[in-house]
Amino acid sequence: MNDLFLKALKGDSVSRPPVWMMRQAGRYLPEFMAIRDKYDFFTRCQTPELASEITVQPIRRFGMDAAILFSDILVIPQAMNIEVQMKPDFGPFLPNPIRTTADVDKLEVPDVTIELDYVMKAIEMTLEKLDGEVPLIGFAGAPWTILCYCVQGQGSKSFDQAKAFCFTNPLAAHKLLQKITDTTIAYLKAKIKAGVHCIQLFDSWGGMLSPVDYAEFSLQYIQKIVHALQDEAPVIVFAKGCWFAFKELSQTGASALGVDWTCSAINARYLSGGQITLQGNLDPARLLSPPGMIRNMVHNMIREFGKDRYIVNLGHGILPTIPLENVSAFINAVKEYRE
Amino acid sequence: MNDLFLKALKGDSVSRPPVWMMRQAGRYLPEFMAIRDKYDFFTRCQTPELASEITVQPIRRFGMDAAILFSDILVIPQAMNIEVQMKPDFGPFLPNPIRTTADVDKLEVPDVTIELDYVMKAIEMTLEKLDGEVPLIGFAGAPWTILCYCVQGQGSKSFDQAKAFCFTNPLAAHKLLQKITDTTIAYLKAKIKAGVHCIQLFDSWGGMLSPVDYAEFSLQYIQKIVHALQDEAPVIVFAKGCWFAFKELSQTGASALGVDWTCSAINARYLSGGQITLQGNLDPARLLSPPGMIRNMVHNMIREFGKDRYIVNLGHGILPTIPLENVSAFINAVKEYRE
Repeated sequence: MNDLFLKALKGDSVSRPPVWMMRQAGRYLPEFMAIRDKYDFFTRCQTPELASEITVQPIRRFGMDAAILFSDILVIPQAMNIEVQMKPDFGPFLPNPIRTTADVDKLEVPDVTIELDYVMKAIEMTLEKLDGEVPLIGFAGAPWTILCYCVQGQGSKSFDQAKAFCFTNPLAAHKLLQKITDTTIAYLKAKIKAGVHCIQLFDSWGGMLSPVDYAEFSLQYIQKIVHALQDEAPVIVFAKGCWFAFKELSQTGASALGVDWTCSAINARYLSGGQITLQGNLDPARLLSPPGMIRNMVHNMIREFGKDRYIVNLGHGILPTIPLENVSAFINAVKEYRE
Repeated sequence: MNDLFLKALKGDSVSRPPVWMMRQAGRYLPEFMAIRDKYDFFTRCQTPELASEITVQPIRRFGMDAAILFSDILVIPQAMNIEVQMKPDFGPFLPNPIRTTADVDKLEVPDVTIELDYVMKAIEMTLEKLDGEVPLIGFAGAPWTILCYCVQGQGSKSFDQAKAFCFTNPLAAHKLLQKITDTTIAYLKAKIKAGVHCIQLFDSWGGMLSPVDYAEFSLQYIQKIVHALQDEAPVIVFAKGCWFAFKELSQTGASALGVDWTCSAINARYLSGGQITLQGNLDPARLLSPPGMIRNMVHNMIREFGKDRYIVNLGHGILPTIPLENVSAFINAVKEYRE
């Protein structure tokens, strides 16, 4: 197996850094769009044949150094019996959001091996298709980010209602976060058992919180998840906008931290204490630049982060509008990198 | 005149820090809603009697240490002959967004003393109503933030189209930014001539850019505006999410920097070099906490920023859902502060 990715996570020296892209199994790919035209979002997630096929599509075309299982962070609230719809041109919609202590008390921590069995089947099928070529990443949302959707009921620029819930009813918020955490730990343990080589936690909305509120409503639950998993598989924590918590995040036992494009390599190394592996951080919109410029930006990025303890990635998911040749330029710039 | 605000901007020692709130003339106020029920958004902006009345409403009720003229950052594209609509439950909508070099070339830098004469009249009327009680702040958007709306045509979570325009057609982007800058400088000079005591520049979307792209597409134009104004009035730069550029922003000649709630006082002082006056930074959603907790958070904030070279504010605009008694708690906590 191509072990660049796992070596970078361990901190071992490598000939060049590994590369993958958040949302690499996504809408910029014509072969993904062909499947998307035929099956709706949750059918794609819940059908192991489709999820595994979508997962390996970018590997076949571009040869990234890791695959990431096609799925969604909102399978967790779904498994907790919170209805989640995916509305075209709108995004996730939860018609019965959590708003009261009673709503939280009603929730149960499900048996994920039953409720999310289709994910485990998709992992097994993906591993067969990958045939040991590259490692497979499994993922989940950080509890704070899941709470944001469960309470707000949809995407938002500021997640005001989610924050209002936490700030006016912190006891209920913590109960909810703990239930999400328990479900997430069981889910990720099952994924590791099914064969994923690494876990990435996405705290997409952590950057909406002040450092003090982040410590209270997000960090401590990420900590619990990492503690529960770290002996079984390496964990990458991608907390978007959370530069202010890099020191604490680097001390959770995570193997790597994701970095968004607002945090330069030098700031990220400094803020995270200089030891932990970092992953990122090209602005996804910068893949709209001409291929020659993309190549230069990638080489600069590797020079700035350093080739070791570094995983090349974007600073967030790839945009659907990115031309395929620009993706090639990004991936190939890493593969051709020499010190 | 209550000179706490202007003294803090100069860096003079004060008995307590001054306090005002971004969007203090806004929807949380019943007397604002009474006017809003009768007149649409641009009627309120363009009618000096209404704009001045709205501006002084929060001062009458809460006695903040500065007033900020009721207006909108999108009066600049309007004056440049770009149509701007304000759609209820949607926000700004520009039906003919800027997308090509030809679109940019067509734009002219207007005579703002004619196109935005109503703003100057609103300033004069507001100064009469304030009767020297507190200073009056005038504001504008930073050119990058104005470009975001002009190109995207509406609000956005990521302003992908605005960034795509900059990254695929940087020459046209810079032409547009320069035209916005020229218009903004003329506009703010006219406002100062009409009597405002201070200018605040809002770079609401600066935090969407990497540090390198921020330097290219935002910072240099903020720099030009501050240079043009700094001998005439103090300038506050509020660049939301731009902690990474605090050092450069503090060297523009601005009198103060706005800080959002993700950047702690200690980080903000460190990143800005420790000398410049700072303004902020309570999470607006934290005003949903009980009044006693608000009082404690304000006192902690003053202790952390220090009473001098500090202006108490929120880290972004006040939310429409905040109870009046919580606003009182926020303002009064500052007024009762003793070292």
